Amino acid sequence: MEFSSKFLENAVYEVSQLPGIGKRTALRLVLHLLKQPERQTEELTTALTNLRTQISYCNNCHNISDTEICEICANPKRNKSIICIVEDIRDVMAIESTSQYQGLYHVLGGKISPMEGVGPQDLNISSLVQKLKAGGIEELIFALSSTMEGDTTNFYIYKQLEGIEIKTSTIARGISVGDELEYADEVTLGRSILNRVPFENSIKAN
Amino acid sequence: MEFSSKFLENAVYEVSQLPGIGKRTALRLVLHLLKQPERQTEELTTALTNLRTQISYCNNCHNISDTEICEICANPKRNKSIICIVEDIRDVMAIESTSQYQGLYHVLGGKISPMEGVGPQDLNISSLVQKLKAGGIEELIFALSSTMEGDTTNFYIYKQLEGIEIKTSTIARGISVGDELEYADEVTLGRSILNRVPFENSIKAN
Ligand SMILES: [Zn+2]
Ligand SMILES: [Zn+2]
Repeated sequence: MEFSSKFLENAVYEVSQLPGIGKRTALRLVLHLLKQPERQTEELTTALTNLRTQISYCNNCHNISDTEICEICANPKRNKSIICIVEDIRDVMAIESTSQYQGLYHVLGGKISPMEGVGPQDLNISSLVQKLKAGGIEELIFALSSTMEGDTTNFYIYKQLEGIEIKTSTIARGISVGDELEYADEVTLGRSILNRVPFENSIKAN
Repeated sequence: MEFSSKFLENAVYEVSQLPGIGKRTALRLVLHLLKQPERQTEELTTALTNLRTQISYCNNCHNISDTEICEICANPKRNKSIICIVEDIRDVMAIESTSQYQGLYHVLGGKISPMEGVGPQDLNISSLVQKLKAGGIEELIFALSSTMEGDTTNFYIYKQLEGIEIKTSTIARGISVGDELEYADEVTLGRSILNRVPFENSIKAN
């Protein structure tokens, strides 16, 4: 791509550094901003700068939060004896949107991935172990995605629990409600058969 | 979507104002920036701000340019008696990449679109007519996309040419009708410029 302006070329380059955004898309986005009032670019860049420089994380669960303790951890109605381990804030948002969970979270900030150079020390694992050792937690729910990295991370954390008396569980893996069996992938289908639950439970759940 | 931080919510909102970017994608992009060094967000916002505030356009053809006259218009080897009318800078880039065209451009900045409230006065049309009236131009190539808006714009400009003696042509449509120029492959686009036909023919063809 040959650009007629260094300003244009730089902007397209920087936008195309974002994941999943190619040069063509970047050019389209950047030309769109040029057609909009200058104020829109200003609001965009200010919002991104504020986010990046002023973002903070909950001291307790590492969820993104504008306060030292996030709204979930600070909510007296939440059950503080259950902790659900998730990879990132999107998982918190997804589980919260179900309104089915009343415990707290612990946001790891990623998964162990030797391929991408992410080790246990890069994640919020030691603060989790400390919290568990301090006592008062009865159940730990593993809710990482069931990929190889997710499983590795689960297992690493599980091994840190030695000597700590705590109930552990993982979220049920199965066919999505309403999904046809024939369209489910084999691994999911296999797990959902192995992890079958008493039929009575499934009736009560509905 | 419920956000745990106003900074996060604002950033996601602003990014999702970009065309084709939904809230989920915006959240993914914004969380990506949070994982990268602060410098990356800084470089992105600086590039966008510089673009929006310092961008300028060629005095002659309205192409984006860091100089008063763009490199194409300033190039003594280009044939200044031919002008190719295009919608925006992406079309200039697309045609330039074919290396088949040696004339100049005139960038309209859009197409007439009553639906989107874009009238002739919103486009760089009067400066084009002035240029043609001043003389020295022998041929005008219409290279707008062959959509209804493109045809409307072509026809509007064509009517402004009354009393001006000039050869008109449109790029040959080896490109499928309705396709945007910028997505055409270079060979097809190059050929369609070489095989341009008199503009009157394209009106009769419809
Ligand atoms: Zn918290
Ligand atoms: Zn120019």
